[in-house]
Amino acid sequence: MDHSGLFRNIREKRSFLCVGLDPEIEKLPSSLHKSKDPVFEFNRRIIDATHSYAVAYKPNVAFYECNGPKGWKSLESTLNHIRENYPGILVIADAKRGDIGNTSKMYAKEFFERMDFDAVTVAPYIGEDSVTPFLAYKDKWVILLVLTSNKGADDFQYHNEDGIRLFERVLTVSKKWGNTDKLMYVVGATRAEMLKDIRKIVPEHFLLVPGVGAQGGSLQEVAKYGLNSKCGLIVNSSRGIIFADNTEHFDKVAGEKAREIQQEMEICLTRHKLI
Amino acid sequence: MDHSGLFRNIREKRSFLCVGLDPEIEKLPSSLHKSKDPVFEFNRRIIDATHSYAVAYKPNVAFYECNGPKGWKSLESTLNHIRENYPGILVIADAKRGDIGNTSKMYAKEFFERMDFDAVTVAPYIGEDSVTPFLAYKDKWVILLVLTSNKGADDFQYHNEDGIRLFERVLTVSKKWGNTDKLMYVVGATRAEMLKDIRKIVPEHFLLVPGVGAQGGSLQEVAKYGLNSKCGLIVNSSRGIIFADNTEHFDKVAGEKAREIQQEMEICLTRHKLI
Repeated sequence: MDHSGLFRNIREKRSFLCVGLDPEIEKLPSSLHKSKDPVFEFNRRIIDATHSYAVAYKPNVAFYECNGPKGWKSLESTLNHIRENYPGILVIADAKRGDIGNTSKMYAKEFFERMDFDAVTVAPYIGEDSVTPFLAYKDKWVILLVLTSNKGADDFQYHNEDGIRLFERVLTVSKKWGNTDKLMYVVGATRAEMLKDIRKIVPEHFLLVPGVGAQGGSLQEVAKYGLNSKCGLIVNSSRGIIFADNTEHFDKVAGEKAREIQQEMEICLTRHKLI
Repeated sequence: MDHSGLFRNIREKRSFLCVGLDPEIEKLPSSLHKSKDPVFEFNRRIIDATHSYAVAYKPNVAFYECNGPKGWKSLESTLNHIRENYPGILVIADAKRGDIGNTSKMYAKEFFERMDFDAVTVAPYIGEDSVTPFLAYKDKWVILLVLTSNKGADDFQYHNEDGIRLFERVLTVSKKWGNTDKLMYVVGATRAEMLKDIRKIVPEHFLLVPGVGAQGGSLQEVAKYGLNSKCGLIVNSSRGIIFADNTEHFDKVAGEKAREIQQEMEICLTRHKLI
């Protein structure tokens, strides 16, 4: 799916919501533990309840990897469930991978060939040749880390050379590596005003924005500074949706939460004349 | 194993060699393909042939992950083989992970609890709270990326604020996070002279140095600038050892290559009066 395809989906669903599938095993409703694959069962029910309101799903790979080989099977089953039942939804492997060229190639192979993810998040520190193996795939996206929503973001991301902060350099340098149909950026929502500076460098790229909800970001603020003429935003919510309720009705409540966010997003899209 | 334990092993083996276990499936000798787990079988034979000359093994996780759930089993079998037969050898998961706190915790759980690696490589971009979950484990090491050996290292690692390059800031800031018994740094060997600058900031930490051999670094240069009073270096070689030969005798040749490097290291250690 390219830039235009994504914008089309956003207009159709009147939503730019990504649901983060981060199924911490200790937080799953106890009723699921008797199922053969509780993690997949949880995801399946979350997906079935939220798919009308979401243009993307983003499993964070850490929450699967920590369960070993069977965790990878849960991840594959989750991807397949979305592919088979809700084609057209973007599925992002939030993996934050990145290594020297011949090694990144192996990671790209894992996420884009062995599994069929549409996008993978990649860490920038190692530079261009750590990212290009992911960009070599047709119709696949790289989502490069730029600015994160945690406290530690201050440690290095603002390192400033002649007025250019590291996160800005990551944008300026990397935007030559791939076009707006292949490359997006991760920009944490807790500093929505930073989106203004970011939009100066990458006015047209899609930005994946985590940190709305549990991490304290505001959707209105993000929309104000981040929306562009083709939306250009995918906003992720994980815990605020998937763990909104821990009873047997967790999926119903997740669906309601996703719908609430979708409605708020519809207002933003209308206000910005995008629908 | 702490700093002193590692130095003791280095003196005993007269070697600071780490063997990188990066078994690209296409490069494995064809005779192995009939085995049940060719990747593990390859590693097992490499390990059995090289263990006398190495103080550490470093499987790069990408080369396992790309084979899916069965790749993770190969990785576990490899770790178990070393644990059972050659206790005391440091086993490093070269994973280059890193995510916001609650997610890094899952990665730490994977590598330090579900599997029992001694060390994991971590990417610095996301900052302190992405690294501390790994540092919370007793007797485990974090090996933080500082300077890599690839071309892309130039893109961001030298970003310079008031004369302090990003890789130097990573050292200065992170050395407060954990002591020399818990924290090492990855420093690429293709720029051995950089080790001089790095030793000004972290005179006592162990440095894991990849890039000797296939990537072009020189062991003498690395030793000259990097050795400290407790050695302080672990030098990795992957392709130069494990793929030195692609016939049925690959393990024998790998053992010979490892021994050659060990002998060169013994000269360095003697010259620096460390043995």
